[in-house]
Amino acid sequence: MSLLEESGSAMLEGTIPSMLALDPTHVVAAGVAGFADDLGAQGVAVTRVDWRPPPVGTEGDLADVAVDRRRVAANALAVRRMLAAGCELVDVRPAREVLGLAAGQFLHAGPPIGWERASGPLRGALIGAALFEGLVETPEEAEAWFGGDTAKSHSIAATNNTATATATKPAPELTPCHHHGGVGPMAGVVSPSMWLFEVRDPVGGGTSWCSLNEGLGKVLRYGAFGPEVVERLRWMAGVLGPMLQRAVRRRGPVDVKAIVAQMLHMGDEGHNRNRAGTLMLLRELLPSLIEGGEDGRELADVVRFVSGNDHFFLNLVMPACKLAGQAASGIAGSTVVTVMARNGTDFGIQTSGTGDRWFTAPANTPEGLFLAGYGPDDANPDIGDSAITETAGVGGFAMAAAPAIARLVGGTAATAVATTRLMYEITLTENPAFTVPALDFRGTPTGIDVSRVVRTGVLPQINTGMAGRVAGTGQVGAGLVTPPMECFTQALGALAELARAADEAA
Amino acid sequence: MSLLEESGSAMLEGTIPSMLALDPTHVVAAGVAGFADDLGAQGVAVTRVDWRPPPVGTEGDLADVAVDRRRVAANALAVRRMLAAGCELVDVRPAREVLGLAAGQFLHAGPPIGWERASGPLRGALIGAALFEGLVETPEEAEAWFGGDTAKSHSIAATNNTATATATKPAPELTPCHHHGGVGPMAGVVSPSMWLFEVRDPVGGGTSWCSLNEGLGKVLRYGAFGPEVVERLRWMAGVLGPMLQRAVRRRGPVDVKAIVAQMLHMGDEGHNRNRAGTLMLLRELLPSLIEGGEDGRELADVVRFVSGNDHFFLNLVMPACKLAGQAASGIAGSTVVTVMARNGTDFGIQTSGTGDRWFTAPANTPEGLFLAGYGPDDANPDIGDSAITETAGVGGFAMAAAPAIARLVGGTAATAVATTRLMYEITLTENPAFTVPALDFRGTPTGIDVSRVVRTGVLPQINTGMAGRVAGTGQVGAGLVTPPMECFTQALGALAELARAADEAA
Repeated sequence: MSLLEESGSAMLEGTIPSMLALDPTHVVAAGVAGFADDLGAQGVAVTRVDWRPPPVGTEGDLADVAVDRRRVAANALAVRRMLAAGCELVDVRPAREVLGLAAGQFLHAGPPIGWERASGPLRGALIGAALFEGLVETPEEAEAWFGGDTAKSHSIAATNNTATATATKPAPELTPCHHHGGVGPMAGVVSPSMWLFEVRDPVGGGTSWCSLNEGLGKVLRYGAFGPEVVERLRWMAGVLGPMLQRAVRRRGPVDVKAIVAQMLHMGDEGHNRNRAGTLMLLRELLPSLIEGGEDGRELADVVRFVSGNDHFFLNLVMPACKLAGQAASGIAGSTVVTVMARNGTDFGIQTSGTGDRWFTAPANTPEGLFLAGYGPDDANPDIGDSAITETAGVGGFAMAAAPAIARLVGGTAATAVATTRLMYEITLTENPAFTVPALDFRGTPTGIDVSRVVRTGVLPQINTGMAGRVAGTGQVGAGLVTPPMECFTQALGALAELARAADEAA
Repeated sequence: MSLLEESGSAMLEGTIPSMLALDPTHVVAAGVAGFADDLGAQGVAVTRVDWRPPPVGTEGDLADVAVDRRRVAANALAVRRMLAAGCELVDVRPAREVLGLAAGQFLHAGPPIGWERASGPLRGALIGAALFEGLVETPEEAEAWFGGDTAKSHSIAATNNTATATATKPAPELTPCHHHGGVGPMAGVVSPSMWLFEVRDPVGGGTSWCSLNEGLGKVLRYGAFGPEVVERLRWMAGVLGPMLQRAVRRRGPVDVKAIVAQMLHMGDEGHNRNRAGTLMLLRELLPSLIEGGEDGRELADVVRFVSGNDHFFLNLVMPACKLAGQAASGIAGSTVVTVMARNGTDFGIQTSGTGDRWFTAPANTPEGLFLAGYGPDDANPDIGDSAITETAGVGGFAMAAAPAIARLVGGTAATAVATTRLMYEITLTENPAFTVPALDFRGTPTGIDVSRVVRTGVLPQINTGMAGRVAGTGQVGAGLVTPPMECFTQALGALAELARAADEAA
């Protein structure tokens, strides 16, 4: 039974954070800076919550959504489905097979976007994917092709006299991973020859997928496209993917949700830290990998690659969370967020009550720590479908489970705990399957409520990697970021409009 | 640089815990119950520390040790060496080779003990070891042999007409693992054909060893000796040990200390929880295991065995901690505890200033949770060399890193944090290599000071498994336990005597 069911609809109502007396001399002050300052000056412990009044102009929408008679039941159903969703890894196959992708079709992270507005890392990843697919011979040719400069593209092809870049080459086509029911970290670029994890929700029956993780540094998803990037993609498609396929098929489904539950007890939060998760996945697959009669050298390469990449399991946490979001989607009247995703230019969200409609606004740029040689000026705005982890209550929402993440960006264990605690203000329930040791095994805050976000001004906390602004750079750091409030005010507006229409129809 | 060096000798002086004002209205009350009650009634937050006055009769010894002019420098040296000690896994070999053990020689956990005073689980493990070595045919024969009833032993041998139990059979010989520079969990029984992890301190050059972990439940170290126990030991000696040997030799040394440091960030405390440590060890060994051209079936068995036993890495944490204790031992005037160990009947400690001398007292019985079908009446008193983990500042001392352990025995994450915090009261330094996320990466409390233990009445907190009282039972649960205070008052007495002698000689 979910916590929501235990406490009934009371949990859905919430309160505007104000002054909460924890003990006689510990005050939580939300928004009222002067009062908090006075208390602090008197030696009273004050925890400041970054609360702001609802954005001007949202009062009417907040009221209309609040009185929507469908809302409480719709949200209860949405979070119940979100919590109930399971996730099993059932197969590993090329995108060509899984999604029927054809040559020239590319998927990407976040809401829809074209080449013209695409940021550096997304362009870089597309260039790398085109090189990997053999559609172009050089990055310049790729840029011309994606940019629609077919004359230039053809002239290059003519010069090089290659078979791959002929006049019959298809026009490039970009669509979001989410439109195909899947997710991709960072640039999230998927092309037909890339291999995917396929997952299935054994409870609701939904399916999803994600690409295979390449590791850190100079990798495609961070916008790098050099020869080592393409070479690695070839090895992943030629050796890694097929071997994982044989192992999964030989073994049978791997319970991904169970691993996510355990990793939260082992210092991982499932977005920026996936070390224990990766080792547990390896543990699950090893016996069937070993007994599969694989070539010893290739098997050792695969084991080194997987175990040497602490983020390998991220690409299974993500589709597990996508299954949870999918399960909660499409419920009329529900204000629960089902997707948060970024394409490097725009941040987009979807809500249960508004279905597949995107609410977008310019993405913020993460703040955090940089790899040697890089600084804030090198960082691209927020990018990737990985915010699906926060959408389902892990990642930044489970930061209390991974204090090392807070430390990575200059915070403390207390910061990590405070971050998770704050997320309970904007969520509707707690996940009894995903518990946080530092909070005495309280469930992670789950089911972001658009109304609560707008009402409290508290934005979802996202842990993320940082891609270099310039195509070809790769990773420059890791840090924290929030979505723009405009996504939520827009979504609230649409939900309010639907609420008014439903009220009139009733 | 260690914290000790930064703060000079001030840290070594310590204070008797009394009333510590953390903030204007948060009081730590040690021992003064009435005062704490009054404060509590007034709504003031009170943290109660279980402090008692020093045991009657110890005042003179405490004073003599306190004024020992060698003490501060000796303790500084002891903890510096303890912190500096590293640990690498360098080989895996049979005890026959490593220690020169001959047929009939058995090692055991804790201080010295004979068959007559041995508890059920130690007797059970000895019986199993004798069966495994082929020295006896039946448990009854083993009991007779260990009990010195040679006539009975011979008559059984004559009846069975076997080659193994002849008149030339050697007399059994029991000595502590610690006397051979190593450690064994629970009963800690080692016989010549069992395989050992060999470790080396690359800093101080010391060496140590530990047996290979059998898993949980019906296993030799918990006193079980049924056919499945002996069968498993045969497989470990015939397949597991040799394969690990080939992997380690092929790969080169494994940095055990680095894994211990990481596991503390992954929910393990290194005594009752070794899940992340085990997976990280496997990660280190896998490529060389796979590339070694091993039989696929046997390799899969080994991988399943290791990865399916969350305690496998305990047997490397233990000798790593033994290396730290060894490095700190034998420094005249030092009151640092270098060994804590139990044989199931007695608890014994050694200190740096008193060398190899044991200070023993009857072992307490752990309190905790029981496996289905068992209760407190089934539990044997505290047993095993695994308290070497607490001696070196992990295990119970790092419980804040593993709140799941506190939860296992009915506590909370706050209990886990409080336990680690309390251990700072009786230790001399913090380990900068072993840090605790929940304490904002503060180093684990390290270097138990006999004086502080006696002065504060705060006993070291040990996390432990529980063996069944009756030989042959196996594990019955897991829980928490402390050493008897008498070990520390005896050690203090001996240290005081040496201090007085040194003073007279000066």
